[in-house]
Amino acid sequence: MPVNLTAPQPSDLIPVPGVRVGVAEAGIRKANRRDLTLIELAAGSRVAGVFTLNRFCAAPVQLCKQHIAGGDVRALVINTGVANAGTGEQGLADAYATCVAVGRALGVAPEQVLPFSTGVILEPLPVDRLIAGLPAAHADLREDGWFDAAHAIMTTDTLAKAVSRQVEIGGRTVTLTGLSKGAGMIKPNMATMLGFLACDAAVSQALLDALTKEAADLSFNSITVDGDTSTNDSFIVVATGQAGNAEIADPLGPDFHALRAAVIDVSIRLAQAIVRDGEGATKFMTIAVEGGLDIVECRKVAYAIGQSPLVKTAFFASDPNLGRILAAIGYAGLQDLDVGRLRVWLGSAAEEVLVAELGGRAPTYREEDGARVMKEAEITVRVDLGRGRARATVWTCDFSYDYVKINADYRS
Amino acid sequence: MPVNLTAPQPSDLIPVPGVRVGVAEAGIRKANRRDLTLIELAAGSRVAGVFTLNRFCAAPVQLCKQHIAGGDVRALVINTGVANAGTGEQGLADAYATCVAVGRALGVAPEQVLPFSTGVILEPLPVDRLIAGLPAAHADLREDGWFDAAHAIMTTDTLAKAVSRQVEIGGRTVTLTGLSKGAGMIKPNMATMLGFLACDAAVSQALLDALTKEAADLSFNSITVDGDTSTNDSFIVVATGQAGNAEIADPLGPDFHALRAAVIDVSIRLAQAIVRDGEGATKFMTIAVEGGLDIVECRKVAYAIGQSPLVKTAFFASDPNLGRILAAIGYAGLQDLDVGRLRVWLGSAAEEVLVAELGGRAPTYREEDGARVMKEAEITVRVDLGRGRARATVWTCDFSYDYVKINADYRS
Repeated sequence: MPVNLTAPQPSDLIPVPGVRVGVAEAGIRKANRRDLTLIELAAGSRVAGVFTLNRFCAAPVQLCKQHIAGGDVRALVINTGVANAGTGEQGLADAYATCVAVGRALGVAPEQVLPFSTGVILEPLPVDRLIAGLPAAHADLREDGWFDAAHAIMTTDTLAKAVSRQVEIGGRTVTLTGLSKGAGMIKPNMATMLGFLACDAAVSQALLDALTKEAADLSFNSITVDGDTSTNDSFIVVATGQAGNAEIADPLGPDFHALRAAVIDVSIRLAQAIVRDGEGATKFMTIAVEGGLDIVECRKVAYAIGQSPLVKTAFFASDPNLGRILAAIGYAGLQDLDVGRLRVWLGSAAEEVLVAELGGRAPTYREEDGARVMKEAEITVRVDLGRGRARATVWTCDFSYDYVKINADYRS
Repeated sequence: MPVNLTAPQPSDLIPVPGVRVGVAEAGIRKANRRDLTLIELAAGSRVAGVFTLNRFCAAPVQLCKQHIAGGDVRALVINTGVANAGTGEQGLADAYATCVAVGRALGVAPEQVLPFSTGVILEPLPVDRLIAGLPAAHADLREDGWFDAAHAIMTTDTLAKAVSRQVEIGGRTVTLTGLSKGAGMIKPNMATMLGFLACDAAVSQALLDALTKEAADLSFNSITVDGDTSTNDSFIVVATGQAGNAEIADPLGPDFHALRAAVIDVSIRLAQAIVRDGEGATKFMTIAVEGGLDIVECRKVAYAIGQSPLVKTAFFASDPNLGRILAAIGYAGLQDLDVGRLRVWLGSAAEEVLVAELGGRAPTYREEDGARVMKEAEITVRVDLGRGRARATVWTCDFSYDYVKINADYRS
């Protein structure tokens, strides 16, 4: 059961002028399910992307990077079922063949198509079935296709993940609609994570690139570790420029400020949805580290806590086993950390309990206070490193029986 | 059920001249179990140790480091139940009080006593009960106390871990007997890991120090990550010098060669026993990485594979999900790794199957071959990075329902 995550309704998702979306059943891996999504972008759209750092980055990721660098992207094509990763030269040829087929259907060059795949690694992409499914996806293209697409990109996700919002920019209403998928534990090395966000703002390519990187760092990269990503992780931001606003080119102006806030907000909601639907998740944990010398060390500590199987199983058990949290802080790699200056709190929406200070349990801490917080579904671990002003937040989920079950069964 | 690990029999454990061992029920955390171990060393014994790098290193670890540096150690005292970690100044005072009490009982200084604790973190050590239990442990001191001690240091271990062997050195029979505990997953950040090895060889302090470090790296530190250790991890090697051999002081001579081989062998068996008894383990996995530029990068890759929850759940399911192994290699942090040169094999005692090469699945690989290997309880993942001559081996276990169960229940 996802943690405080509800399925989007079709009416929640607002079409983005300049974007049409279609889906189809291509039979990539399983019959009778929509597994192919085509997204068509109007001429003049700008596209930016952030991709996995995995050395085994999948064939479609390699092509995406090349095609984005060429500019003038006009289509995205996404299949689920097979990730086309660890597939060598044949995988590249299959991904390119997909781009050729999409380009022919839409009257654009293969280099104007971005391919995405998610699913099982190391298996060849059934590219013939994918291409055979394209005409149906093409025929299905429509402005209100987002809801179906949110379902068609799922793998082990239990709920579709999609968000829309609108914001006034330069006197115009700008619409943002995004999709994400990825139901692994929150380290996306454990599941392909895809995020797509489209808006109709007019914005310069340079600002779109910078904003995409910043939004990824504050959202999808706060549920992962740099360099610790799956073969296919990708986050794409599209700006069609059809809202009619004056092109945003000033990074210090109010228009960019408004767009930036909206893109980051939607990105965080899409990324958090992945954690809330984490495989077997029963708790949503926010790890907020402050008082660090820099963001890097705050993230190290947050990840050490958020990725510790011992911490995660304790949260599953609603056990305020603070020793495990302190042990994780201790091995986070800050060799000059003075544990005597640390403070740690456990918090729910209703209260925050000081747990540790002066190198040990806080004198005021009572086990029943910790136990009360741990019964909540949304729990914050707040850590003050006591040596600086930097902060970082990471979101994660607990580690349950069902995590093992889902991942032991995934291919069967 | 531990993987191919059998309980030691009393007759397996050979007394080490110069060492007496006694145990007692001190009621540290639970009644009616032996939870206190005293080890007395004859005058003239030499002691070396390797300790956790965790910044929250427990109070007894801090004292151990000081006392070992002073030399002339005459006793070890080990309690289970409470780790005395994250206990601040009071924890240090409690650990020192323990040393004072042991020193009084044995007629040595507190600084000649090494204290060790394992169990729950962040809870105060019930030092009064510990000290009250010392007379019984003292009265129990005997040369053949090893078997009882192996049981008295257990926490969530399902089987005691103890090994003896004898080796000829300089015309004398040298006896080595060792104990270990730690039943967490193989990253000891998840459970306190203790290892004690005593022998009666005469060896210089300098060589004993170097050998202890080397043996730790090849054994206990090959089931862990540097800097990624629990609050209490400790590995101690004692040499009583009572075998009658000429003191070993030449690092290139045959005597040191023989001692070194024996100490490393016993250390590896003690460390592997921890993995075989890993919480919920059903498989014993050897991750052997070769062809690296240096040992550091080989260890990075081995740990990335061996610590991936996705890899470990796939092994639990006997699923040859090689994509997960390749993904782990890809995010191990070798940013200039050429995946086209990689080769990966899955092996059992009976066969070895080439799984991946040239950046993808090996053309000769058949899924049924991988599935056959995966059914075995002992599986080797061998990786050739194809860029150098260094190698490293790491041992790990799979990740099962029972791991979650044990760790969600540990404090209850």
